Amino acid sequence: MLRSLIPGALALTALLAAGPALAQDTAEAAETVTRVADETGFILNTFLFLFAGVLVMWMAAGFSMLESGLVRTKNTATICLKNVTLYALGGIMYYLVGYNLMYVDVTGWIGSLSLFYNPSSAELALLDGDESMLAAVLEGGYTIMSDWFFQMVFVATAASIVSGAVAERVKLGPFLVFVILLTGFLYPIQGSWTWGAGWLDAMGFSDYAGSTIVHSAGGWAALTGAIIIGARKGKYGPDGKVNPIPGANLPLATLGTLILWMGWFGFNGASALAMDSAAVMVEMSLVFANTNLAAAGGVVTAVVLTTLIYKKVDLTMALNGALAGLVSITAGPDVGNPLLAIIIGAVGGLIVVVTVPLLDRFKIDDVVGAVPVHLFAGIWGTLAVAIFGDADFFVQIIGILAIGGFMAVTSSIAWLAIKAVMGLRVSEEEEALGLDRSELGLEAYPEFAQGARSL
Amino acid sequence: MLRSLIPGALALTALLAAGPALAQDTAEAAETVTRVADETGFILNTFLFLFAGVLVMWMAAGFSMLESGLVRTKNTATICLKNVTLYALGGIMYYLVGYNLMYVDVTGWIGSLSLFYNPSSAELALLDGDESMLAAVLEGGYTIMSDWFFQMVFVATAASIVSGAVAERVKLGPFLVFVILLTGFLYPIQGSWTWGAGWLDAMGFSDYAGSTIVHSAGGWAALTGAIIIGARKGKYGPDGKVNPIPGANLPLATLGTLILWMGWFGFNGASALAMDSAAVMVEMSLVFANTNLAAAGGVVTAVVLTTLIYKKVDLTMALNGALAGLVSITAGPDVGNPLLAIIIGAVGGLIVVVTVPLLDRFKIDDVVGAVPVHLFAGIWGTLAVAIFGDADFFVQIIGILAIGGFMAVTSSIAWLAIKAVMGLRVSEEEEALGLDRSELGLEAYPEFAQGARSL
Amino acid sequence: MLRSLIPGALALTALLAAGPALAQDTAEAAETVTRVADETGFILNTFLFLFAGVLVMWMAAGFSMLESGLVRTKNTATICLKNVTLYALGGIMYYLVGYNLMYVDVTGWIGSLSLFYNPSSAELALLDGDESMLAAVLEGGYTIMSDWFFQMVFVATAASIVSGAVAERVKLGPFLVFVILLTGFLYPIQGSWTWGAGWLDAMGFSDYAGSTIVHSAGGWAALTGAIIIGARKGKYGPDGKVNPIPGANLPLATLGTLILWMGWFGFNGASALAMDSAAVMVEMSLVFANTNLAAAGGVVTAVVLTTLIYKKVDLTMALNGALAGLVSITAGPDVGNPLLAIIIGAVGGLIVVVTVPLLDRFKIDDVVGAVPVHLFAGIWGTLAVAIFGDADFFVQIIGILAIGGFMAVTSSIAWLAIKAVMGLRVSEEEEALGLDRSELGLEAYPEFAQGARSL
Repeated sequence: MLRSLIPGALALTALLAAGPALAQDTAEAAETVTRVADETGFILNTFLFLFAGVLVMWMAAGFSMLESGLVRTKNTATICLKNVTLYALGGIMYYLVGYNLMYVDVTGWIGSLSLFYNPSSAELALLDGDESMLAAVLEGGYTIMSDWFFQMVFVATAASIVSGAVAERVKLGPFLVFVILLTGFLYPIQGSWTWGAGWLDAMGFSDYAGSTIVHSAGGWAALTGAIIIGARKGKYGPDGKVNPIPGANLPLATLGTLILWMGWFGFNGASALAMDSAAVMVEMSLVFANTNLAAAGGVVTAVVLTTLIYKKVDLTMALNGALAGLVSITAGPDVGNPLLAIIIGAVGGLIVVVTVPLLDRFKIDDVVGAVPVHLFAGIWGTLAVAIFGDADFFVQIIGILAIGGFMAVTSSIAWLAIKAVMGLRVSEEEEALGLDRSELGLEAYPEFAQGARSL
Repeated sequence: MLRSLIPGALALTALLAAGPALAQDTAEAAETVTRVADETGFILNTFLFLFAGVLVMWMAAGFSMLESGLVRTKNTATICLKNVTLYALGGIMYYLVGYNLMYVDVTGWIGSLSLFYNPSSAELALLDGDESMLAAVLEGGYTIMSDWFFQMVFVATAASIVSGAVAERVKLGPFLVFVILLTGFLYPIQGSWTWGAGWLDAMGFSDYAGSTIVHSAGGWAALTGAIIIGARKGKYGPDGKVNPIPGANLPLATLGTLILWMGWFGFNGASALAMDSAAVMVEMSLVFANTNLAAAGGVVTAVVLTTLIYKKVDLTMALNGALAGLVSITAGPDVGNPLLAIIIGAVGGLIVVVTVPLLDRFKIDDVVGAVPVHLFAGIWGTLAVAIFGDADFFVQIIGILAIGGFMAVTSSIAWLAIKAVMGLRVSEEEEALGLDRSELGLEAYPEFAQGARSL
Repeated sequence: MLRSLIPGALALTALLAAGPALAQDTAEAAETVTRVADETGFILNTFLFLFAGVLVMWMAAGFSMLESGLVRTKNTATICLKNVTLYALGGIMYYLVGYNLMYVDVTGWIGSLSLFYNPSSAELALLDGDESMLAAVLEGGYTIMSDWFFQMVFVATAASIVSGAVAERVKLGPFLVFVILLTGFLYPIQGSWTWGAGWLDAMGFSDYAGSTIVHSAGGWAALTGAIIIGARKGKYGPDGKVNPIPGANLPLATLGTLILWMGWFGFNGASALAMDSAAVMVEMSLVFANTNLAAAGGVVTAVVLTTLIYKKVDLTMALNGALAGLVSITAGPDVGNPLLAIIIGAVGGLIVVVTVPLLDRFKIDDVVGAVPVHLFAGIWGTLAVAIFGDADFFVQIIGILAIGGFMAVTSSIAWLAIKAVMGLRVSEEEEALGLDRSELGLEAYPEFAQGARSL
């Protein structure tokens, strides 16, 4: 064990006590010890970003499967295509402009409008063997591109939230244009306010891994989209009756939820942004435990409440309960007492059970429940940091309103502009036929016969 | 931070420059070097638990998909709900009481009956910036909650084993009550005997990652449940004929198996409980290789044997062969020769092929083969440590019998008590209709037409 | 490397020696500092192999789901069985002979023809507590079996490539015999030329993570197999008409693609083979970012091109575009400018869109598009290292031709020999009935009614 070094260190002590050493060599020796620690910390921090980035990247599969399971068969291939393509576009846009807008030279309200985010010249020189660059590289605490990778997967998450809400009627091309705007500009600009050390950060707004910055931001884009595009044909009867349109493949939706649950350990777990000290490991461990327990609290609440209210357990609600629990804990997963995490998650589960029917009352057709899960539970989670943690309640409200207002307004403008230029919605015939045939010219399950229940 | 060593290193510099230094400074320098090693080890150990815990958490998705694929469509949503909810309940119960019963103040037969398992006050103080707590925190070797997280996912595995065996006829509520008892009390109590440093550990019982403590324990709960609840209607004809009830979605079952295989690298791989020395990395690497080869041995054996016996390869048997290989190696994955891992896994595969029909002869209806895979292969794996490794054969038998006896008796009592109070089984009409409609009021695949072959 | 600290430690030694210290203590102190760095590096390198190996192992599930989604329902269980079994066989063969042929005592053209690859005696002694073996163990830089594990999962990838191309008509047993030859002999022998430090490596052939060595090698085996076995009945009409045979379950194919994308971070990301210095972390971070961006480039290109050419977006092409982007970047994922990675991946996407119809013109029936994705994009990726990186164009061509020639010839001989001895193809009746019933005696989706569109 590294700990078995203790005898060796004692020998070193004895030795050091022994003699009058030369100052120059001495400094060099001290630097050596310091550099070992520095370089080890640098390695660990960088690895954390890469490891956790993979977990969050994996959430793209989670959203794909969740949404594939909750739409109808005739729109399943399209939702798969949307999710894969939005992840691809999000990455490219975040490389081209997004990261710079969010993190580079942030003035308070916006970062740098420059192209590309690349390794530093010091890094490239080190890679080419110029060891004199080591100190300059270590200065950053982690590599440039590992940080980019970890931040990039977050923007993809925000975009994934939208695709589920507007599924089954939005046209493919216009949706992808919205994704380009969202991942390249809207998300990064509001993100710069807090994580880019902008004005909200200066105020003390507290949003650990993004209940508001990622989930509510995506949720607002989803909500405005669902309203502007309008409900699916047949979802709401002329008499105000709500017609349930069940998801076509619930095991896939379950898989998607468990993938998201898994990915959230990267999402929240690495948002300490370091793993180079015992203290940060204490924090990270707490975050893992709390993240898991909040999701558990959301599931149990949804299961109990749907049993009480509807006399039947609703699997979809249970899955969304898990996700709402996860979103709720995301603003403050480092709360010191895990019991609070269970409670915070449980309230998230309650919010979903209550607000899913509420949206239907307003005839807002959110196919997968993205708005209750990501927007409403995200707001709750952000407030919970003030209630149970150290954040200032007033500042949290300012953050929620500022980001919400910005996202609601800019998303609406984006959706409306796209609508004016390209149109947003497929025709009635295409919607009835299903987007898979109209947009893709194929079927998700071509050999499987459709039952009578298919709408 | 390791970077916070810089002051320490500067102190070292000053000290070295001083020439004939003071003993006190000398000691400080030595402590600095020691602390670097200590803190690095602490970071690595903690990260191992978090990383591997995520892999084992992922096994919840593995069981969900495996069981979703092996039940009939009419019971698929219910098995999804059960798996998600049992994972949630398992985590909450293990936080509330389970961990304390298993690991805290174990008297030999049981741990502490106290509520909640939280970070230590030293950890919370360090998190608040009190650096004087560092030594106290490092003492533990890893963080409190990372250990909790890693142990928690094991209890969820034990519960997942049960859900498959009793699928397609057990009532949802009563099943979840059993899960609460299993994860909060039964599993932790028997677990304390070995992993809590109780009486079996004192005897020298050897079960590296839980062939007996996790898999057989879950297997006994599954077996007693399957017997007490009884077989599915139609599974066994009045003339003793066994009617095969094929699983509805074999790609999902395949996916589930591969997820479990992946998760097992966390399950076995991190059960060295440290990664702070070269020696432990040698062990861990051996464990990864052996775990993979044992699964491979199980697959190949099942493929060959079913070809020889039935003239057809049986995919379900191949999947269960992989799982049996994994369970078999779990008690001793650190065996020094990987060839032995192949053999141990191959015997596991053989056990499954032989005992699946055997259970049917006794009209024990285990829907997914959980008892052969987890109980029988688990017993074999525990014995294999005596045959191929250093364990004492007699002690291994005592452990198998003690844990088996405890789990069989307490599980039976739990099932029977629940049966008396709430009933365990859905009505015949509900069973024929499918649990998805009777318990959940929905369908897993609502748009897909059912073929004639559906039972 | 942290090991590059050794000079620093020597300076410390000199310094310490300067006072009136004892030479013996001095040396011991220096050794202590050096050993900390060495051991930490050893731990990190080993962990990297294990972590990344799990990600690449997971690609077995990716191929399983991709292929399950792209074949017809009547052949789905068989493709699942093939994928699980080939992963099992690949691991066993690589343990028995493959690793030795590829990495041990490579003469230039082939390694050692000896059985088993086991931990070293120094490692086993250290594991038994003999601390004097530590230095000998640290010498290797990582553990023996972690290296085996990481290399083993690559051979499985090569074999997975084949199963998709020859799906829906190859007999199970003969296919598995081919897998044994491929993973035990063909892949390792050509792999030894570069990664075993053989003649291609000496020439300067550059293939970072295996565009040629893994993907093209597997692609040649797939291509020769597809040609020798012949097209599926009904795929090509007598008039030369190409009948599309759509995949049966596109969400599974999407899941498979995203699994592969995830796994590729292990595949490329750990091919730096170390994480013990800041420099290597810079490289690894670049590899992660580039890998992701190349896949994204492939997706976007395929989406845009299919829209332009066919007026419909093709989901299957988009998925194969992602994979082609990934294969393309695999030979040089450490290119210094991520913009180049997007371009390299985009060309990969273009290659797939262009060459999938091309194969059909030659009546080569590659069920999942494995040849365009792995062989053609692999060749492109290998050339791209010369175009955009430091490799020599001429040497890259030699490597492509040498490995391609070897694999084409030996694979053809293997397929033809198996055909002569066992036959390669199921009968026409069996093919019409589906391999699931003829080879396995079961169905992948027994309860789901088949629609009229089923071929």
